[in-house]
Amino acid sequence: MSESPPLGSHQLRARRLGLESQTEPLVIMHKNCPVCRSEGFRAKSRVELRFNDRSVVATLYQIDDGLVAEDQAGLSEAAWKKLLPNEGDVIEAAHPLAIESLSAVRAKLYGRRLSADQLAAIVTDIAAERYSDVELAAFIAAYAAQPFDLLETAALTDAMVSSGKRITWSSCVVADKHCVGGLPGNRTTPIVVAIAAAAGLTVPKSSSRAITSPAGTADVMETMTEVDLPLNRMKAVVEQHGGCLAWGGSLELSPADDIIIRVERALDVDCEAQLIASVLSKKVAAGSTHVLLDIPVGPTAKVRTPEEADVLAHNLVSVGSKLGLIVRPYISDGSQPVGRGVGPALEAQDVLAVLRNAPEAPEDLRSKALALAAELLNLAADIDPDEAREKARDLLDSGAALKKFMEICEAQGGFTEPPSAPFQTVVTARESGRVAAIDNRLLARAAKLAGAPEARSAGLRMRVRLGDAVLAGDPLFTLYGETEGEIDYALAYIAANADVIAISAP
Amino acid sequence: MSESPPLGSHQLRARRLGLESQTEPLVIMHKNCPVCRSEGFRAKSRVELRFNDRSVVATLYQIDDGLVAEDQAGLSEAAWKKLLPNEGDVIEAAHPLAIESLSAVRAKLYGRRLSADQLAAIVTDIAAERYSDVELAAFIAAYAAQPFDLLETAALTDAMVSSGKRITWSSCVVADKHCVGGLPGNRTTPIVVAIAAAAGLTVPKSSSRAITSPAGTADVMETMTEVDLPLNRMKAVVEQHGGCLAWGGSLELSPADDIIIRVERALDVDCEAQLIASVLSKKVAAGSTHVLLDIPVGPTAKVRTPEEADVLAHNLVSVGSKLGLIVRPYISDGSQPVGRGVGPALEAQDVLAVLRNAPEAPEDLRSKALALAAELLNLAADIDPDEAREKARDLLDSGAALKKFMEICEAQGGFTEPPSAPFQTVVTARESGRVAAIDNRLLARAAKLAGAPEARSAGLRMRVRLGDAVLAGDPLFTLYGETEGEIDYALAYIAANADVIAISAP
Repeated sequence: MSESPPLGSHQLRARRLGLESQTEPLVIMHKNCPVCRSEGFRAKSRVELRFNDRSVVATLYQIDDGLVAEDQAGLSEAAWKKLLPNEGDVIEAAHPLAIESLSAVRAKLYGRRLSADQLAAIVTDIAAERYSDVELAAFIAAYAAQPFDLLETAALTDAMVSSGKRITWSSCVVADKHCVGGLPGNRTTPIVVAIAAAAGLTVPKSSSRAITSPAGTADVMETMTEVDLPLNRMKAVVEQHGGCLAWGGSLELSPADDIIIRVERALDVDCEAQLIASVLSKKVAAGSTHVLLDIPVGPTAKVRTPEEADVLAHNLVSVGSKLGLIVRPYISDGSQPVGRGVGPALEAQDVLAVLRNAPEAPEDLRSKALALAAELLNLAADIDPDEAREKARDLLDSGAALKKFMEICEAQGGFTEPPSAPFQTVVTARESGRVAAIDNRLLARAAKLAGAPEARSAGLRMRVRLGDAVLAGDPLFTLYGETEGEIDYALAYIAANADVIAISAP
Repeated sequence: MSESPPLGSHQLRARRLGLESQTEPLVIMHKNCPVCRSEGFRAKSRVELRFNDRSVVATLYQIDDGLVAEDQAGLSEAAWKKLLPNEGDVIEAAHPLAIESLSAVRAKLYGRRLSADQLAAIVTDIAAERYSDVELAAFIAAYAAQPFDLLETAALTDAMVSSGKRITWSSCVVADKHCVGGLPGNRTTPIVVAIAAAAGLTVPKSSSRAITSPAGTADVMETMTEVDLPLNRMKAVVEQHGGCLAWGGSLELSPADDIIIRVERALDVDCEAQLIASVLSKKVAAGSTHVLLDIPVGPTAKVRTPEEADVLAHNLVSVGSKLGLIVRPYISDGSQPVGRGVGPALEAQDVLAVLRNAPEAPEDLRSKALALAAELLNLAADIDPDEAREKARDLLDSGAALKKFMEICEAQGGFTEPPSAPFQTVVTARESGRVAAIDNRLLARAAKLAGAPEARSAGLRMRVRLGDAVLAGDPLFTLYGETEGEIDYALAYIAANADVIAISAP
């Protein structure tokens, strides 16, 4: 080995461990490491690591043999990618500054309103990844328990916009369509974007991955094309084709939101203010001017009653207007899945069937996508409602929407057919009767247990709709999985929850 | 290598990593591990590991080289100690059952009352270490934001008692003394226990380590003797000497509480219901019948006003009586530290000075300990108040309390003098005047930054009290640390918070 200069009291040599921990940065040091001794670091201490002008706050674990030497800092992938050293480079380790904004999190927990400055400080610290998972969980729980009012929500949204990049467009009307979620399937976005872009609108659609659902639009699109586009490529696609269907995460729009969503998913909580801030911050940062918002309502959807939907719609419009955004709510039927597939590839198959005018295309998905596209043409292109409906249908029936969709996929990196799952099993009716109720939440959970969205071809395909007559033994839905273990796990869950699909006496 | 039977699809070989992660169980598997592939495990999945009749739910990280082979599960110390395999033993890995009690946590977040059954289910799952840190944070945040009422608090306390062992004693009166905390120093417990035991009471005192403070009684006692006693040794000490001063953690009393406290410490939140449940569950489980509770009140103590203290006192008495415990609150002055030391060894030095009737013994600590001891003799031994005061003083002045304290330390494993810190620095007054206010919270934080309680000799020693006249440059307190880095860190914090000790114009 060549001679190296001796290390200072805060210095360690970087070692890449290839350790996957999602986005949470970890560092592993030797128990006898001089830096731990001089700084008093113990297991689970938060440690700030610096290399050149980059820094990251990581959670420390300590080890007593083998993996790292006493002068090494073993970095997880998330930490390594923030610091970008070379193997063996000298990095510095120190106590992170106390996170002052945590006192505002505690104040919120205890029921106090937060000022715009306090929210900006929290969001800035989160975007800089200074919060540990436990601290993020406390922030999420705080606003779940002590809901933000509209002023706080607008301030939170604004802070989230400021935490990331903002995109500007040459067009002065920039349209967007979004669904607040909670309904399995319901993958209208790719169809609506294809129709709107084919009609000449600018629709730079960026979507999230699933939060608590079996698939987000980005998960679905990723089964057909690349969605992880850097900003300049995304802009080029839109400038050339009028639209795109990208993942928002790589665009660095409202990055604090992505970090919050990761822990929200683990906690399985959704809150209205965070929903509004999450949706609208992405839209403002993406440079949108007109946003159509699908709000499905049903007893087991995210929004359960028309009254709740009215409040949410009002709050979305109100916070949007504070941020200079024209928001139109579209309240829709959320009593059962839209389309047949639930899960990334299964929903992609539905989308393609509609765009291709295939005979097996789910009629409910087609008609809802057409209605939304017409609303968007009316809102953003100022076309008369009747004319907008006709135009949307023409663009879909003529194949113009399919052509546009394929152009967008090609521009994003090429189109591929969505994959099929290697394992499947049919779930059948235990008794004869009529399909009286479909529990969207239990259904979504079953699709997730089958592996969706991480396992892209996993999920389920509906074989019945509300009101259908079935005989005992008739198929209700088919489960798809990439491993037998996951299918078994979903089956056990379904067996324990007979009311996933309720059959009433014939 | 000898031939081994092939592994089943859920099986891995245990590998001890020597990885310290506090009490959080971790498992590291290879990215291409067949169990991960068949079960769909990803980084940060929760995985249930089983060996013989033992099991543990661990957080998964994945690695792509070196550390673990594809058929190995690398276990952190916390996971290893729950499973107790031998190196290379075959363990099973599976999806943990969904934690049903998390829906009650979410219900609490959203403001609903919890039933005794729901609380019992939550506490049982926590005691079995089924909750991840993020889930624990959500539970803690939920009751911080939506305080438990007295019925919920009593149910929580009862559930915590049921989660662990219960101790029984031959004596029908079992006394205890506890401080709700929040005041630096204030280490009366060892003195009170020594006096009460010398008076013939049964005082099986088990204490916690610091939650958010620079030292708990167990941390202080640990600088002088062993505190980590198994139950049978603790009982033997008490049967022989009438009292003990042990750490509660090793007694497996109310183990759910210890798990909750670890995450509460990271979040730096304290809540009344959790405080009551934590204190009273330990007392009930320890077999106490009469409990004296010191409640210091001051603008920067945990309890800030006499009104708050009255409410807390009432709630402690009320919940105690639901559990068959006689609780007597003792509301005391919390405007400044009691004694001079803040930090484990520094407080131990104060305790010894009082017990030894040394000339440098802090008078405030002596008089408060005497008053509490007299209260306890009155409460539990039914001695008239005046007589109780005289008896307590006699036992201290005669050396009987010191003798009892030394007997207890010897019985717990031998007495040693508390250590001194290798580094110290004096913090001086910036201007002349009178000591107008002492901020207990900032002072506690400075002591913690100096390394307390993990660094046992770290902390600070007060050189002034409220009302003292000081000249610019006079010492206010001395900082002690085991590393220069920690002292520097505490100094930087003090420099940024000039109001740790406020000096009014002369």
